[in-house]
Amino acid sequence: MNRICDLFGIKYPVIQGGMVWCSGWKLASAVSNSGGLGLIGAGSMHPEVLEEHILRTRNATNKPFGVNVPLMYPELDKIMEIIIRQEVAIVFTSAGNPKLWTGRLKDAGTKVAHVVSSVFFAEKCEAAGVDAIVAEGFEAGGHNGREETTTFTLVPSVRKVTGLPLLAAGGVATGRAMLAAMALGADGVQIGSRFVVAEESSAHSAFKQMICELGEGGTRLALKKLAPVRVVKNLFFEIINEAELRGATADELRDLLGKGRAKKGMFEGDLVNGELEIGQVASLIDAVKPVSQIMLELMDEYHSAVSEIKSGGKYAF
Amino acid sequence: MNRICDLFGIKYPVIQGGMVWCSGWKLASAVSNSGGLGLIGAGSMHPEVLEEHILRTRNATNKPFGVNVPLMYPELDKIMEIIIRQEVAIVFTSAGNPKLWTGRLKDAGTKVAHVVSSVFFAEKCEAAGVDAIVAEGFEAGGHNGREETTTFTLVPSVRKVTGLPLLAAGGVATGRAMLAAMALGADGVQIGSRFVVAEESSAHSAFKQMICELGEGGTRLALKKLAPVRVVKNLFFEIINEAELRGATADELRDLLGKGRAKKGMFEGDLVNGELEIGQVASLIDAVKPVSQIMLELMDEYHSAVSEIKSGGKYAF
Repeated sequence: MNRICDLFGIKYPVIQGGMVWCSGWKLASAVSNSGGLGLIGAGSMHPEVLEEHILRTRNATNKPFGVNVPLMYPELDKIMEIIIRQEVAIVFTSAGNPKLWTGRLKDAGTKVAHVVSSVFFAEKCEAAGVDAIVAEGFEAGGHNGREETTTFTLVPSVRKVTGLPLLAAGGVATGRAMLAAMALGADGVQIGSRFVVAEESSAHSAFKQMICELGEGGTRLALKKLAPVRVVKNLFFEIINEAELRGATADELRDLLGKGRAKKGMFEGDLVNGELEIGQVASLIDAVKPVSQIMLELMDEYHSAVSEIKSGGKYAF
Repeated sequence: MNRICDLFGIKYPVIQGGMVWCSGWKLASAVSNSGGLGLIGAGSMHPEVLEEHILRTRNATNKPFGVNVPLMYPELDKIMEIIIRQEVAIVFTSAGNPKLWTGRLKDAGTKVAHVVSSVFFAEKCEAAGVDAIVAEGFEAGGHNGREETTTFTLVPSVRKVTGLPLLAAGGVATGRAMLAAMALGADGVQIGSRFVVAEESSAHSAFKQMICELGEGGTRLALKKLAPVRVVKNLFFEIINEAELRGATADELRDLLGKGRAKKGMFEGDLVNGELEIGQVASLIDAVKPVSQIMLELMDEYHSAVSEIKSGGKYAF
């Protein structure tokens, strides 16, 4: 009995992160059709675009799916109105206080998970009445916490303060990492980077190719004086980094960042001037594949790691 | 068959990190007597002090033990001369290029492991002919790499480029974390923080107590313009952090750091002005215990996690 599978009505406890510019209806429905939980990433969608993606996902799968909503979203009320009107069964909220929307979503019959990067917010989740918590470590791509706590420390630390169904995120791109995260106390995982390079992801093909070639050390957490975000160390990063090293203020960094950098990089493929959000674990990803293939590989890796443990070998002492 | 146990002639694949100001003969011999591999931390010892600790360790245990040597140590030649003359069987080198000493140590019949924080240096280890590699993630206490790669990403990334016996370090303080690290590709673990708070550790008792009370988010990587080091967020850290945020130069930081900060904090117990090196995983440690008890708990946790996986439960899907 796996509580994440039970809670969301899915076959494998694998959630596809609802990533900006990557996670439209194609990716979400493909993941759901492959036995995981696909999430539409509302963070990069105007409300009417989100509504279209919900309808298209529903058309492409009869399996459960959800929407990820960053709570700092400018048109948050409209987004939530659509989600409730469309009777979306599952919502993952992030980047904000879980008390804001959990109650109203649950009143509407929606299951709610909230993404945290610290024990402090995990405790707020429990108080807010969420159904599940995602503990996302420092190694994760995109927006990230200020405590810089890694998956290895965060997952057992969150597990210590809550009995809720728990998903680990950050650094998880393989079935071995799934098993490791579960041994640390998680019930399942949320995977981002590996699904960014899925064929069905709406990330630009040049960005996908770059991720496949990225080695260990190819990303860095930047913009800590604004909102920390893990990005590829491209020219845009170097400019930001140089400014940070000389002590640039938040205002200066905001000017350097400008508007639409993530779209420019991840969606339009400007690998030089764009903001390219991806996890450290990009170093383990080396090919663009369809979601069905990725999910098969994840499960093969997972099951062979379980078998190895069962058979003793290096694990027996 | 576990290759780390075989290589070092120990019962459990658990290495006690050779930490400055904590790892004298008492700690090292206690760990070796409990079935792990104790390491004397030469980094905080004058050569003649190291020699005394080697003799005392030999007096206190007939099990294998080793010495950890940071290769940036000012009197490195003297330290290595003592190690070779004393026929120390195992040396862990760190903070430098493994090519420097591996050959000479191996010629003297010593087994050599080297600590790395990146794939780049893991490849150098393989070329230098080391017997084992320690892959230490960003969450580890004390001195740390510039790539900020976490244990979750570093261990499988290093595993991908080398078939050598591999130890995971950083974020490992429990038997569950041991199993997780091994599922990611390691053959065993190096544990630091949990042994800092052992009764036999020479860390100041006030520092040990502070670690037991530290919560998630209580440490931070500092001094990135000098040599990155993970420390407790005490007043000393706040002063350094404020300087770093305003863009202080390496020279300014060196002046603020001064001399003997780590000794002042970790050994003399000045929790306000000292440099207190400890890992993120301090948040999971809550009591000072003898090494024999710590090792029993580690093995209990490990074996019960293995049993859980064998029995299915959340792992079956």
